[in-house]
This record gives sequence, structure tokens and C-alpha cells, in this order.
Amino acid sequence: MTDFPPAEFEARVVKAQTTMAERGLAALLLTTEPDIRYFTGFLTRFWESPTRPWFVVLPASGRPIAVIPSIGAPLMARTWVEDIRTWQSPDLADDGVTLLADTLKSIAKGGQIGTPMEAESHLRMPLTDWHRLGDMIDLTSDGALVRDQRMVKSEAEIARIRTACGIADRAFARVPEIARAGTPLDDIFRHFQMLCLEEGADWVPYLAGGAGPDGCADVISPADSTPLKAGDIMMLDTGLIKSGYFCDFDRNFAVGPPSAEAAAAHAQLIDATTAAFEMARPGITTADLFHAMDKICTGGGGGTEAGRYGHGVGMQLTEWPSMIPADQTILKTGMTLTLEPSVILPNGATMVHEENIVITATGAEFLSTPAKHALPLLEA
Amino acid sequence: MTDFPPAEFEARVVKAQTTMAERGLAALLLTTEPDIRYFTGFLTRFWESPTRPWFVVLPASGRPIAVIPSIGAPLMARTWVEDIRTWQSPDLADDGVTLLADTLKSIAKGGQIGTPMEAESHLRMPLTDWHRLGDMIDLTSDGALVRDQRMVKSEAEIARIRTACGIADRAFARVPEIARAGTPLDDIFRHFQMLCLEEGADWVPYLAGGAGPDGCADVISPADSTPLKAGDIMMLDTGLIKSGYFCDFDRNFAVGPPSAEAAAAHAQLIDATTAAFEMARPGITTADLFHAMDKICTGGGGGTEAGRYGHGVGMQLTEWPSMIPADQTILKTGMTLTLEPSVILPNGATMVHEENIVITATGAEFLSTPAKHALPLLEA
Repeated sequence: MTDFPPAEFEARVVKAQTTMAERGLAALLLTTEPDIRYFTGFLTRFWESPTRPWFVVLPASGRPIAVIPSIGAPLMARTWVEDIRTWQSPDLADDGVTLLADTLKSIAKGGQIGTPMEAESHLRMPLTDWHRLGDMIDLTSDGALVRDQRMVKSEAEIARIRTACGIADRAFARVPEIARAGTPLDDIFRHFQMLCLEEGADWVPYLAGGAGPDGCADVISPADSTPLKAGDIMMLDTGLIKSGYFCDFDRNFAVGPPSAEAAAAHAQLIDATTAAFEMARPGITTADLFHAMDKICTGGGGGTEAGRYGHGVGMQLTEWPSMIPADQTILKTGMTLTLEPSVILPNGATMVHEENIVITATGAEFLSTPAKHALPLLEA
Repeated sequence: MTDFPPAEFEARVVKAQTTMAERGLAALLLTTEPDIRYFTGFLTRFWESPTRPWFVVLPASGRPIAVIPSIGAPLMARTWVEDIRTWQSPDLADDGVTLLADTLKSIAKGGQIGTPMEAESHLRMPLTDWHRLGDMIDLTSDGALVRDQRMVKSEAEIARIRTACGIADRAFARVPEIARAGTPLDDIFRHFQMLCLEEGADWVPYLAGGAGPDGCADVISPADSTPLKAGDIMMLDTGLIKSGYFCDFDRNFAVGPPSAEAAAAHAQLIDATTAAFEMARPGITTADLFHAMDKICTGGGGGTEAGRYGHGVGMQLTEWPSMIPADQTILKTGMTLTLEPSVILPNGATMVHEENIVITATGAEFLSTPAKHALPLLEA
């Protein structure tokens, strides 16, 4: 699972250290799962427990330094990290804060220490401990250094996302095995996750969706036990993990022949996705992709309540950037993105369609197998 | 899924508001998934996306107020929350911060506003936005008000945890169907998650474990493709979700007849769990439970590198308190806990055993079906 070669991590670290030098940062403090894994390869589902904080310090040169609970030392020792400092956590008096402060002081030698503070970042330690750390050490924003670097993927990362997409492709193709008129939605959700696992997912962190006449009432709900009925459009949106990388795309299904409105809405979404895909290439912006889709979805009305038409994807289900008018991120080779247009049906229902793509030197490639205009059918 | 009756949420809110009044807090700001769900019933896997912040404000009296991205409004409208204020997120210029500050100002009317800052809490918004909020509003620690209240469960919560434990019980009983000498561990992990889903889990956020001669090298690793072999002890530790509540316990399996050392270690762990279970009752402390187990596990040596012998469980995989010598939390009726002793085998391997219990008026009850002294066998 942590099987990137050390050269992959070394390239990531050297790239970050180059930017750190440009910005006058003597060290970087990382506290979240994806940021720590990105530079170390430390992959564990143990982050599900909020109890213990985990820290990694990136010095101005050399490998990352782990400052972690002792329970994680054997796993961290299997990564390329050599300097592993531990304490027995939870420690109610000092849960790693002094050990971290001492490490940062000795590494930064009075220089500035950055940490992710910008949009979409989180601090994964209690605020009281953050304040205690702040009394010992000055911390500043990393200026989105980590977020921006993670946005552009290596070939090895793209290969993993492609694999994850292939697993979801195969699971979506098997939905008619588990869903037909009369099947309760929560039963479909359970069985769809089983299909994802059977097709090779390591685990399935995300599944949302819904079903209703011509579309869903909302697109982030968990399932209830309402059975599918003829005329429903069912949407399943999954983020599954393979070797630490996500796919994130959805598929819509018609229970029996769809209404003319539903069929037209789905075709419109495919057209919107295709329009964005065909213009995607290095040099244009995420806002350009938004407008290409929005012209087809709302006639240029400015989007729907979902708030965006796509985003980055990789070690997290959603990553920077966002396809919204205000996001002027310039596309670069190696960015992995979702295209996720949405439309509102005449009856007020929402329909969303989503594909995953990678930006190449000359354009873009689909990572998911793109859906066709015609809605796939479930038995009514 | 969000099917607690409003009276359940009303009781939670009134209890918190009583403590707020005692502590002079005019409002409470909540930013994390479990804290928001605890007071509102807002259950969605959409939290997997780190993009958007979500806020709930608990006033001194009355229902919670949601300050959330518009994409979540339909789902929040299905809860008992009536006052739902939205913005279209992501907004790169102001991602809900002004709307939140205005709400807090009008609700608190100059009074103190608390937010979880103590051990095991997190802030789920970017630090730059937290600092901007801090320029407009003074925020103080809630003094672990939310953490302490969530520690004691209602009958309705206990019933859900019991249901989750029952699902895991049935999945563990079926492990011999999917694991024998020669089966790769990652294959077992995938199929075990399928068993959890088949037995009724909504999803499976946590699975860890390992296998090796007499035990595991560490207990938080994801699986690799190493096949099981005769003489291995395999441990599977799962946290699955049913209706928003976790179980968290593990089972050990011997591949063929176990060594005398492994058999003795497992029996020792069962004895430790039993000793803690038999003394568990309102009025004693989590430290008392630690010492009862540690006497059997290490002869009172003070524990292993895992750092603790159990913890709370409920809406999160792990919750306050911790079974460590320093944690003097007094047990109360309605607390749901894991008992999780660990031992080190003569060959250096670790074996961990875990059960889930609830504290009752007169003692404790098992929520998981307690394991027996003899290790369950897998085909060698």
C-alpha cells in the first residue's frame, strides 16, 4: 500500500523544499492525513480515531521528520522516513506539544515555520494545544504551498487514480444486478459498496445519491429504505480508495424508460461534460471549464445550488481547485479533475453527472469510462 | 437515518444549554461532523469532502441554528432545525465567515461564545478563516462541555451501538468462510468489509489488523497481499456504522492450532477484559479499569506501546475517555466503552483483544458478544 519508490517521495520533498526556499520558510509543519501521507507514504485508516495528533516536520533539506504517537512507530518505520520521534499518546498533560516544539526549534533555527492555513486546509490538533504551541513557536501560513503542489499529480499518482476509476467503472456496470423497481435504496447502497470491494476497492469512504421522479431531491443524503419505482432516476456517486487514491464520479440510472424530460436532462449533462472535456488543456482556467458547462446547463445562468461543476481529486475525495467563476486556477499537465455539471428538472429535481479526467500536454484524457447520452436502464 | 424523534435532540440541547448557563456561555459554535450531528441529526457522508466548512450555533435557548453551504440545505431541512442560513460554497472571497460572525453576534448579544478546544477536539475550518472570525468575534473554550455530554449516551444511542455490535458479531462469526492458510490478507480485508455490509452495516469506516506468527507487528496497518500461513494469529479490528453509530472491537483467529504462547496470550487478554468488565460500574474510574487489565497483561507494568486499554465509542470510532493511569474520568450509567487490553508475546509480536460494553446502574453489560478463551480456528 505504501509502495511508491523512495524516489517518488524524494521528488515531492525536493519540490516543496525549493518553494520553501523561495518563500523563506525554514520548515513546514503538517498535521493532516493527506499532507502527511503525501510526503511520507504513511497510509493507515487509524486517522478515523480523533484521539491522537500526528505531526510531520519538513526541514529545509533532507527527509521528513515524524513526531508521532508510539503506536504508529512500526508503520512509520516501514516508510522512507528515518527520523521518528515518539511519545506515548494519549498524554493528558502534554500530548506531543513539547516534543513537537523542540523539534521545530532545532530544525528551523529561528527561521519561519509554515503550515497549511488556506482554503480547504484543516488543523488536526486541538486548539488548546495549537495555542500552547504558538506560545513556544511562531507559525505562519504556508501560502497554500502544499495544496498547490498536490494539485499536480505524478505519473505514479495518475496511474492509481486511473485504477480506482476502473474499479468504479466495473461496479457501476453491475448496478442492474442489485437494483430494480422495488429494491430499497439503502439495500442498493449496501450492495453497491460490496460490488466496489469485489471489483478491487480497498475501502469505500464515500457513497451518496438518491432516487426520485426525474432526479434527486438532494445529492448528499445517505440512503433511506424507500423502494425504487418506475419513473425514478437513481444517482449513485462514489469515492472509493485503491492504494491510497480516490476516484470520484457518479452514474444515473432510469427505472424503466425515462421521461422525455429526464432523458433530455441526462443528454444535456453529457453534452456539458463533453464540452468541458474537449476544451480542457494546459493554459486555460477552471473558470473556463465552468462557463463551458454552464452555457449548456443553465444557458450561462451562473450555476446551481450545488455551487460548482467539478473539482480536483486524488488523495482526497475533493481537492483544489473548484470549477466556479471565481476560481482562475490555470490548468497544468498532470492535474486530475472531476467534471460535475448539474441541472434542475422542470419538476424541481436535481440531476448531476460526473466524470474524472487528467490534463495532458495536449488536452485531456478520461480516467473514468465516459457515460453515453442514453440513461442506463434498470428493470421496472 | 436521521430518525431520532425531536425529543431526543431537544433533551440534548436543553442539557447543553443548562451547562452553558452555568458556565456563562451565551452561545456555542460547532464545526465538526459528530458535534453538529449530535445536536441536529444532520447525517451525511459528504464530510469526506474537505472543501466546505459547516457551522452550527447553539443559542442559550431554542433550537440550533445552521449556517451551512446551500448544497446541504435540503438535507438540513429534513432535521428538526428550523433556522437554516446558507451561502453558495465554495466562495473564495468569504466562505461563510461573515454570515457566521453576523449570526454569532446577533445570537450572543455580546456574551461569551464557546467552541470545543480541548483534547480530542478539532476545528473544521481553515485557520485563515478562523483568524478572520476571531477579528470579528471573541471565542473561548467550551471547557469540554460537548465532549463530556456526548460521553454519556441515551437509551436510543445505546440501542444503535448495540445494533452495530451485533452486525460485527455476525461478520466475525463468518470469517472462516473468507480466510484460511493461503488467503492474502488484503483479500480478507476486502471480503470482511463485504460481510459487514451484508450483515447490515451502512458503511465500514474502519478496518485494521494484521497477521503473523503469534500476533501482529503492529495494529494500525492496512493489509498487504501476504498470504496467511499456519501458525499465524490474524487480528481484524473493525469500526462499522449503523444509523450513524459505531461499534469498535476486534477478534483474533489462529491459522491451525495456535502455539502454547499464543493460546496463553489470548486467554490472558480474555481474563483482563473479564476483570475490567466485572468491576465496571458507576463511581469507579477509567484508571481503575486500566489497572485491573494491566495487572493481568503486564503484572502492573504500566501498559504497552499502544498507549491505552480502551476508550469511549459512539458517534465516533474512538471517544473520550481513555483507559490510561492518568485518566480519572468517573464512570456513569450510559457510558459506552471499549475494553482493549494488549500483550506482547515472547517473540515480540503484539496481540490485542477488544470488546464493547455499556455502564448500567448496577454494573456493565456487553454490547459485543464476548469472545471465549480459546482462539477461533481458521483452516491451515
